[in-house]
Amino acid sequence: MVVVLKPNTPIEKRNALIAEIESMGVTVQVTEGTETSILGLIGDTTHINQFRISSNEIVANILRVQEPFKKANKMFKPEDTIIEVNGRKIGEGYFSVITGPCSVESEEQIESIAEEVKKNGATFLRGGAYKPRTSPYAFQGLGLEGLEYLKHAREKTGLPIVSEIMSPDMVERFVEDVDIIQVGARNMQNFVLLKELGKTRKPILLKRGLSATIEEWLMSAEYILNEGNEQIILCERGIRTFETYTRNTLDLSSVLAVKKLSHLPVIVDPSHGTGKAWMVEAMSKAAVVAGADGVIIEVHNNPARALCDGQQSITPSQFSQLMDKLKKLIEIEGKKLEG
Amino acid sequence: MVVVLKPNTPIEKRNALIAEIESMGVTVQVTEGTETSILGLIGDTTHINQFRISSNEIVANILRVQEPFKKANKMFKPEDTIIEVNGRKIGEGYFSVITGPCSVESEEQIESIAEEVKKNGATFLRGGAYKPRTSPYAFQGLGLEGLEYLKHAREKTGLPIVSEIMSPDMVERFVEDVDIIQVGARNMQNFVLLKELGKTRKPILLKRGLSATIEEWLMSAEYILNEGNEQIILCERGIRTFETYTRNTLDLSSVLAVKKLSHLPVIVDPSHGTGKAWMVEAMSKAAVVAGADGVIIEVHNNPARALCDGQQSITPSQFSQLMDKLKKLIEIEGKKLEG
Amino acid sequence: MVVVLKPNTPIEKRNALIAEIESMGVTVQVTEGTETSILGLIGDTTHINQFRISSNEIVANILRVQEPFKKANKMFKPEDTIIEVNGRKIGEGYFSVITGPCSVESEEQIESIAEEVKKNGATFLRGGAYKPRTSPYAFQGLGLEGLEYLKHAREKTGLPIVSEIMSPDMVERFVEDVDIIQVGARNMQNFVLLKELGKTRKPILLKRGLSATIEEWLMSAEYILNEGNEQIILCERGIRTFETYTRNTLDLSSVLAVKKLSHLPVIVDPSHGTGKAWMVEAMSKAAVVAGADGVIIEVHNNPARALCDGQQSITPSQFSQLMDKLKKLIEIEGKKLEG
Amino acid sequence: MVVVLKPNTPIEKRNALIAEIESMGVTVQVTEGTETSILGLIGDTTHINQFRISSNEIVANILRVQEPFKKANKMFKPEDTIIEVNGRKIGEGYFSVITGPCSVESEEQIESIAEEVKKNGATFLRGGAYKPRTSPYAFQGLGLEGLEYLKHAREKTGLPIVSEIMSPDMVERFVEDVDIIQVGARNMQNFVLLKELGKTRKPILLKRGLSATIEEWLMSAEYILNEGNEQIILCERGIRTFETYTRNTLDLSSVLAVKKLSHLPVIVDPSHGTGKAWMVEAMSKAAVVAGADGVIIEVHNNPARALCDGQQSITPSQFSQLMDKLKKLIEIEGKKLEG
Repeated sequence: MVVVLKPNTPIEKRNALIAEIESMGVTVQVTEGTETSILGLIGDTTHINQFRISSNEIVANILRVQEPFKKANKMFKPEDTIIEVNGRKIGEGYFSVITGPCSVESEEQIESIAEEVKKNGATFLRGGAYKPRTSPYAFQGLGLEGLEYLKHAREKTGLPIVSEIMSPDMVERFVEDVDIIQVGARNMQNFVLLKELGKTRKPILLKRGLSATIEEWLMSAEYILNEGNEQIILCERGIRTFETYTRNTLDLSSVLAVKKLSHLPVIVDPSHGTGKAWMVEAMSKAAVVAGADGVIIEVHNNPARALCDGQQSITPSQFSQLMDKLKKLIEIEGKKLEG
Repeated sequence: MVVVLKPNTPIEKRNALIAEIESMGVTVQVTEGTETSILGLIGDTTHINQFRISSNEIVANILRVQEPFKKANKMFKPEDTIIEVNGRKIGEGYFSVITGPCSVESEEQIESIAEEVKKNGATFLRGGAYKPRTSPYAFQGLGLEGLEYLKHAREKTGLPIVSEIMSPDMVERFVEDVDIIQVGARNMQNFVLLKELGKTRKPILLKRGLSATIEEWLMSAEYILNEGNEQIILCERGIRTFETYTRNTLDLSSVLAVKKLSHLPVIVDPSHGTGKAWMVEAMSKAAVVAGADGVIIEVHNNPARALCDGQQSITPSQFSQLMDKLKKLIEIEGKKLEG
Repeated sequence: MVVVLKPNTPIEKRNALIAEIESMGVTVQVTEGTETSILGLIGDTTHINQFRISSNEIVANILRVQEPFKKANKMFKPEDTIIEVNGRKIGEGYFSVITGPCSVESEEQIESIAEEVKKNGATFLRGGAYKPRTSPYAFQGLGLEGLEYLKHAREKTGLPIVSEIMSPDMVERFVEDVDIIQVGARNMQNFVLLKELGKTRKPILLKRGLSATIEEWLMSAEYILNEGNEQIILCERGIRTFETYTRNTLDLSSVLAVKKLSHLPVIVDPSHGTGKAWMVEAMSKAAVVAGADGVIIEVHNNPARALCDGQQSITPSQFSQLMDKLKKLIEIEGKKLEG
Repeated sequence: MVVVLKPNTPIEKRNALIAEIESMGVTVQVTEGTETSILGLIGDTTHINQFRISSNEIVANILRVQEPFKKANKMFKPEDTIIEVNGRKIGEGYFSVITGPCSVESEEQIESIAEEVKKNGATFLRGGAYKPRTSPYAFQGLGLEGLEYLKHAREKTGLPIVSEIMSPDMVERFVEDVDIIQVGARNMQNFVLLKELGKTRKPILLKRGLSATIEEWLMSAEYILNEGNEQIILCERGIRTFETYTRNTLDLSSVLAVKKLSHLPVIVDPSHGTGKAWMVEAMSKAAVVAGADGVIIEVHNNPARALCDGQQSITPSQFSQLMDKLKKLIEIEGKKLEG
């Protein structure tokens, strides 16, 4: 951490600040500039409250040198994290394909989709039982019933299941029922939930928030890691920008950033990332060659009748064509499609 | 709702779509354009799943005519909602000043700040007992102990207290302990929490999410209203933009928008909205003349020692000067400072 | 165009508005809703001044049905535009690779880079003679001298040259000297310049503005088309968002959108799109499989000594490796690398 | 400037980098951290090409300590710049009210508006002769004829005139005809234009770009200052965000930032900043109390017939009411309404 002082700071105020900073457990080295001086903080600054320093009247600015995340940081754990779910590996060298409907609508629906996508190469089944919807008047999901149907679909197909959790009091049930617990974009900074999930040993699929920076996203992973759970899969799902043609702007460069900064796997959601079914294939291909460890795709047997996200869901037969193209690219990338 | 069809749509497909839409309980009127036709939906479209329509292959686009919120909508309840808390009114015609530290740090701290701000015209006391922090290594608040200290400060000063809730399992306790329950920006779309709060009859201070549109913000209020709780105060606290000089970009025009679209009161948070203590006075004044129903301001006895948000907290004496200026403007606006 | 009226509009005001709109050369059809009525405008609405309508006191909102661009619109010219430059084709079915340094620094520099990139499969040479720089103290380009060096490099290698224009008075010279005239992101809405370029018959490389919507970008192309020049290549180069890890956020879905909405070719600039040399390869690959018609990449013989954009320039040997990977993907996409 | 090195950098590479940096005319001081080392650059770093340093393989990051603008910087010219136009002062202590129609439509229109607004306290007359419009099919302004009508209106009322320039070849004419030359948001980084304007001694009204940071805005002022013209008035006119209810998001905190960072005057444009006539009054009031040196407001005698921006124009009688309210606030702020 570097503290930039205001010009013409009285020496005694500067010394007082240095003493205060050093009392936080780091050493300070001064660099005298022509107009301003800077203080370099030597030691572990992760725990330092930078706002406490920045509110000192002689401080002009604070510049961070170190990333604020430690356990998610590749610098401290250079080997890539590989997560195993029912024998399937997720992470560097593997490619995972998680598919299924936005929401579980009935037992028949989820089972028939599960069978179709499995046939076409999906490695995990997703389906929403609890749905975070902008409107209270929109379909809110089947709840526990939905989880039951998902379990039946898993039994029939062998596909591990992924479903979204919405509050801390559901953790116990989700740990028992699903194979990967999804934290949606709107809950990326639901810290109470993150801490509870950190206490479990279940794999967590952590979606990037609508307007979360890459650093904030990794800090949310840090919340889970800090409680002891290292099974985290990050998921880029598009960010909010001024562009309205697409539902969100899919930020594929974030995949590269995460792979550089962290050891955690990262997958891509082209369905939410674009909001348009006809864009899903191309953006899935782009995700593969950009280095993602997988994709999560909404597939629905009848998108025009879907209770949610119909406009961004593809059909099983479109999924089948998409997989033909993905397989070629996965091979070129030297990765293994796990399933 | 207006459904725009693709050019050259076969008549039978169009008829099928019309039949489907009418089965949802509305009437359809067709307007034939030169290149495209449009369907006008007549009736209450709030409950219509627009994505189900938009995923139909002959649909080019859907345009909404009606706002998606009903209970928060001024069109359906033209008179302004006035909320009473311990005899103090919040809403059109009144001006509320909620102040206090970012987080409760000790009994002495909160009590001394409470006394100071009361003396200078604050009408409510705020203080965080549970703190949503980006980093798991940052101070997370005193928890229940913090709530106790707040209650002591209320006893001493008579100021009603406002504190932030972080998860649904805290609702019962907060209902008992605090006077206004704050929902932070990160929880604006924590729908489980909103529903629980909707079941209470406590006033809720609902902050706008970091990247929430005004419509989404009102839809979150709708979640609470839909469960029966009409005691909602909205709070503009800045949105995330590309600008990094300020912590957020305070969107004062949202105050005007909310007052136009809804009957609910709306206040402004210049502390989070700018992230800079020296900007708080000017932006508070701007909030008054823009028509806000109040402000929420972080005040700390020693910002340089604050455990959080020191850089945006003002001192009690700065608050006193600020209030002198606000009072003049509140008078010019013809409002009553409640307290 | 659909005009939404406010509730309870007096019939005579509505009739007056209808008469006014019909005087603009379109027909109006009324749909009576339960709460509001809407007016459907039938005919060509491209020339209608929608703000004139929206400022009428009885108008609640205006919804556009038609895209505002005509000549750039795929609906009116379904066949893809293919541009020929010195025998090389740009557009659907072909893949173009435009490379070279951010700025021309010397005759030796541009010639040696030109030879290197040609050897490795580049199909066009780029180089800045005039540089739009945020700071007046930064290197502003060699100007006319730079253009001369570019022409020498073209003579030696046969690569057609691309260079950025900065003002209307340079048009004549650029038409004579370069093969493709680049309009930079900051000039995307320099309408005087666009009109002048529209009067030429030179191919124009039109970059998307930093915060331009896809529609505005196509409207800028429309300015050029409207003057008679149909030789336009669009270029996605990243948009400005809240994320600061990358210089911009590369919006690959805009490539899909442009290919859907327009007949014009679109290429991708991963160098500016990310601002990081180490991201260029992966994002170039992603551009190919997302359907782009080409890429424009900054290559410098010695990035650490580059007078601009060194941090996002790759070396000729990195470019060579990148091309090995691109060629495979171009083949899979069934496209022809033109050169 | 602070250069952060990657961990475990070989000493000889570090020494080579230090030598290279020192050859640019600054001194380097090293601070050895536990994980990384940092280099502090001592001296004037304005002219240093930071990207040249950041592309060095051992550099992890560069942090700027100094602002990149010098002549616009309050640190180097602490006294506020006051601009005099025909005897009227613009800057700290004064409040300017610039009003008039979006575009000059006829001689009668501009003269009658000019007389009305003068009567109600406007201190400058604005009117567009050349209009940058997103669509080539929209009204592009009357051009030279418009300038003539503006001059007639000035003769009749004595109000100095403000009009927007669109390209460098118009500079001579504008210098002769108008009193303040406006540079629109889309031309904020038209550097050729800025340099030409820098060579004149006319006051320049420099609008903030749609997605320009405050720093970039001041750097554009620096382009003008660097050529010798110190007569610059900055104008906040709203930035582009994800919010679509308003045309832009008016960033009033930028007024505070500019007044802190620079000595130049800054005014506010609530018409473009919101895009809604009914928001203009409240946001104008907010601009006064936030500390702006003036406002620029679109006034039209018949907004429903305006050839541009009708939806955000107020009528002369609304302007009159607005001025009554502004005058009170200007007085409270201790400023002088110039005129």
